[in-house]
Amino acid sequence: MSDGQANPRTRDPDRSREAILDAAESLFADRGYEGTSLQEIGRLAGVSRGTPGYFFGSKEGLYGAVLARAFAAELDLVAGARARATESGGPEAELAAAIGSFVDFLAARPTFVRLVEREALAGGARFRAAPAHAATMAAGLATTADILARGPFRPVDPAQLLLDVLALCWFPIAHATTFARGLGLDPEGADFVETRKRHVVELVLRGVRNG
Amino acid sequence: MSDGQANPRTRDPDRSREAILDAAESLFADRGYEGTSLQEIGRLAGVSRGTPGYFFGSKEGLYGAVLARAFAAELDLVAGARARATESGGPEAELAAAIGSFVDFLAARPTFVRLVEREALAGGARFRAAPAHAATMAAGLATTADILARGPFRPVDPAQLLLDVLALCWFPIAHATTFARGLGLDPEGADFVETRKRHVVELVLRGVRNG
Repeated sequence: MSDGQANPRTRDPDRSREAILDAAESLFADRGYEGTSLQEIGRLAGVSRGTPGYFFGSKEGLYGAVLARAFAAELDLVAGARARATESGGPEAELAAAIGSFVDFLAARPTFVRLVEREALAGGARFRAAPAHAATMAAGLATTADILARGPFRPVDPAQLLLDVLALCWFPIAHATTFARGLGLDPEGADFVETRKRHVVELVLRGVRNG
Repeated sequence: MSDGQANPRTRDPDRSREAILDAAESLFADRGYEGTSLQEIGRLAGVSRGTPGYFFGSKEGLYGAVLARAFAAELDLVAGARARATESGGPEAELAAAIGSFVDFLAARPTFVRLVEREALAGGARFRAAPAHAATMAAGLATTADILARGPFRPVDPAQLLLDVLALCWFPIAHATTFARGLGLDPEGADFVETRKRHVVELVLRGVRNG
């Protein structure tokens, strides 16, 4: 190529890598996996034609890397919030912190929500096949089971409780323009995220408390 | 036309109408609103070419009728369950019955779930514009507020609680092949629906109970 772009190894590979992941997350979210090509991703990321393939091997590899990055960010956020909560308040505070950080994660990452919504409509096979998915579900289940075991909680299936938390945090973002707005709520409004957090934390803590 | 089909007015109009609505719900769910034509709907329904337009005027009118039929079925089911519960157990039993009947409705109607998921990805404008939507949201809010006002419940925003119930019932169906299966749950399994109902009812009742 004669456009002056050097081999990605010799430029800023971390920046190129992040730009490709950003572009891929956005295009997969807007057009779905089938409707997106490596070439378009490279163009949106502003890298030379061969760079996405050079970094990620294939479209499937890049899709897996998009999921892995999103899940890693989510797990970091939840783990950090939980660690801070452990010092102050024990299992109830940890559960509250995990819920709060998950709402923050989703509100900051609407492309991830859209990407997974598309995946669900497409049957979910590609999503489940991504290694990061199984690892994240396992980590989420282990965290939920651990909190449940240590708290003043009634016996609850950790998988059902994790599904509840996912549902309560995810649904208002995914259905912001359908059900949430239909109920007079505005998930893009300034106070929605904090109001929703407090509401979900209280519902779930009371819902699983012992006695 | 020479295919032996008479004017729909003189055949079985109710049956044709239902067949068109079934075909439309299924095609809108599979391909989205933009990807579906009145002609394809007519073909799938086995009616003559002009019949969908004759009954529903336009694709938009037919889309609204699909939503209206689904919402009416849902409201009927919830109202019936609630009426039976009123006799036996008061507000807590009514809330439990409403949740249970909503889970039954969604499990029996996966095309509706898929249709609304597509609509959410498309921005929701068409969904919100359907007259049946506003009426159903208003009826749902009034029911929720009424149950909350009469029960031994703490003060909770009815819109937030209705959003919770929608989320807890909807998410496992919409994300059966992504998150639910990733957590080792099988929403298509024989006992999932009853297990989920009991779990959600207990979580929500404890979550809103006073004290």
